[in-house]
Amino acid sequence: MLATTPFPPYYAVIFSSLHADDLAGYAEMAERMMQLAAEQPGFLGVESAREGLGITVSYWLDLDSIRQWKAQAEHREAQRLGREAWYARYRVRIARVEREYGGGIEENASPYLG
Amino acid sequence: MLATTPFPPYYAVIFSSLHADDLAGYAEMAERMMQLAAEQPGFLGVESAREGLGITVSYWLDLDSIRQWKAQAEHREAQRLGREAWYARYRVRIARVEREYGGGIEENASPYLG
Repeated sequence: MLATTPFPPYYAVIFSSLHADDLAGYAEMAERMMQLAAEQPGFLGVESAREGLGITVSYWLDLDSIRQWKAQAEHREAQRLGREAWYARYRVRIARVEREYGGGIEENASPYLG
Repeated sequence: MLATTPFPPYYAVIFSSLHADDLAGYAEMAERMMQLAAEQPGFLGVESAREGLGITVSYWLDLDSIRQWKAQAEHREAQRLGREAWYARYRVRIARVEREYGGGIEENASPYLG
């Protein structure tokens, strides 16, 4: 369930949201979008959790991959429904991953935070 | 519960983890670290959710703020306990937020993703 991503740099889309009350159709669409995202050029992985606040971080090769995914037809329709129905509030942050490290998977080395 | 952050650029620390079986002491430490992080220079906000996989994204003014927080004495002890006891696996990703937009809070404009 943790994403395995390549050596940085690459990009992350941090999507944070609070649900609205009526979630009709949401679960099916969320599952479909996860599936569809994974088929896009430049997709590297995704991590997601909801506990009241929902956070989905998807990882991408470059900004162009993110742009293309944002413009994908089915995804555009999902975004519209999200804005109009499923999300009371949301933020999208596009970020360039510069360093990655961790435990339980092999370590990367990089000049940051040494 | 959604973080309100300034106009980009700023930095995000994306911490993804899977818990180990024995979480003795974890909840207290997690709460203390949230409190302590919020007192650090350069701290901008935090978002967190766990659903099996845990994701905590903290936002910081710059890399130097992140370095100082990583080196903070109580936080170092928490990191050690996390590595040795509470986390079966974890990843830390340091990322530069380049663009932010959303709904329910006023929009930012930026050159990215049009």
